[in-house]
Formats: sequence, C-alpha cells, structure tokens
Amino acid sequence: MPEKYMKAQRIEHGTVIDHILPGLALDVLRVLGLSTDRCMSILINSHSKKGGKKDILKIEDVELSGEEASRLALVSPHATINIIVNGIVVKKFNAEAPRVVKGILTCSNPNCISNQNEPIASEFRLGPDEGHRYVCTYCERDIIDLAKRIRS
Amino acid sequence: MPEKYMKAQRIEHGTVIDHILPGLALDVLRVLGLSTDRCMSILINSHSKKGGKKDILKIEDVELSGEEASRLALVSPHATINIIVNGIVVKKFNAEAPRVVKGILTCSNPNCISNQNEPIASEFRLGPDEGHRYVCTYCERDIIDLAKRIRS
Repeated sequence: MPEKYMKAQRIEHGTVIDHILPGLALDVLRVLGLSTDRCMSILINSHSKKGGKKDILKIEDVELSGEEASRLALVSPHATINIIVNGIVVKKFNAEAPRVVKGILTCSNPNCISNQNEPIASEFRLGPDEGHRYVCTYCERDIIDLAKRIRS
Repeated sequence: MPEKYMKAQRIEHGTVIDHILPGLALDVLRVLGLSTDRCMSILINSHSKKGGKKDILKIEDVELSGEEASRLALVSPHATINIIVNGIVVKKFNAEAPRVVKGILTCSNPNCISNQNEPIASEFRLGPDEGHRYVCTYCERDIIDLAKRIRS
C-alpha cells in the first residue's frame, strides 16, 4: 500500500523543527545560518496528519537556542522545536516571534534612514494585530515578505 | 538501537537522485530550477552504506529528463537518477557531464568576452582529463567552482 505520509526519520542527537510553514524550510535554514556541511534532512510540503502541508527540518548534533528560535519565528511563527538527546525529546517549545528585531531585517523603503549607510542598526517592532506583521521603527513601513528581508 | 542511516522514504511517483556529492543537494535543486512549492525530501550528508557521505534528493511528481540530468551533472557528476512510477523504479541512469555547455555557466574571468554584454552565449568544454573540469571556449580559463558559476 502506498504510504501517504513522508515519515520523518529519527535522529539521536540534534533538533527537529516541525510545523514550518510549507515551502519555507530553506528560508529557515538560511535564517539560522546553517551550512550544508552538517547532517540534516529536510521535508518540503510534507502532508501533515492533521491535514494541510508543512515543512520539517532535522539537524543532527545542533541544539537550537532560544535566540535562534526567535530568528526562525521571523520566517515561520509557531514552528515547534524539539531538542533530542540520546533519541529522546528533552525539550519542546514553540518559536515565538520576537517583539523587537534589531539588525537582522532590512527595511523595504530605500529612503529609510536605516538604508542610508548611517551608523544605525535597522529596528522593527511586531505589530499589535494577529498578522505577524513587523513595522520599521524609523519610517513605520510594514515589512511584507519577511523571508526576503532577512540579511544573509 | 540507534539507527545509523537516515533512510530515504519511498515515493510513489517522481525522481530520486542518489549519490549526490555531500553538501551539494541544494545546488542541484537550484540548477534544476525546482521551486519549493513541490513535495520533496532532501537528505544532506547522509551516511552511505558503502562508507562516506552523500546527499539524496526525492522529488514527487517530477520525471527528470536527460537534459536536466546533464545540468545536474555539472554540479554533481555520477549522481544516479531513478524515475519512479507506481512505486517502482522504471528507469535508472547516471548523470553524465555534458561535453559542451552553452549559456548556463558564467566565466570567472571578468575580462572574458562572454562577460562584456556582447550578444554571445558563454560556452565551456569538458577538459580531457578526469578532473570534471570545464574550460571557457573564449578565454580558456578553467572553471574552478562549478556550482557557483551556474546562472540562477
């Protein structure tokens, strides 16, 4: 019988990031600055058992920190982070979108002072509504496509 | 008992590219122009049963053509391409590095005529030795890092 679900293979030590928004696993990888010299598996547009699609990222021998989880939440809020040691989940938490983001995003407004080679870091604040929306502290422009606005 | 190997999950219809040089699966993806709206799984630095490491790429509902296999061979020569239909391998072939490559690579020599906005396509020929080396037809410069020289 054909298998409907792409199963995620277990790892002994490392991090499993589950419930990444579909198609965004490679952006998550980029945001975390993880290079491909690590052992990892990436499932893209995997069928979720609850219906819908999701991406999953498994990285061996890396334990994601809370700060890294915040970075990843910029791209994919509400992803679930599982830290695995000796094959057992020792810690599980959700990626929480940071309220203030300094120096990671670039403003999409070319006239914003943060894009003028001035000695200031970019700064964005999470909007008050539910839409996972960041607003530039300097020019108040909304950031539309967060994944594209993250500095490499 | 911990599993040493990351197993590649079966797919019902699509292409499995095996024996990709370790760490180069994302370059293969880029060369093939495959976007992340497809269902796929990517294993990076997976332990090979024969020893050593390799990458594996599984793409659902895509049957790789011979021309696409040539493009991928630019990045990872000798990768194995398996075409799967109804869960069965119906075709298996190796990615053969093309002898001549037109318009896909850019020459690393900034003074090369192919980089001067002239109406000519870049052209490279596979070197006569075993080293998977491409030489510019115009300025005879060797291409060192093929993955980086592929136009996006």
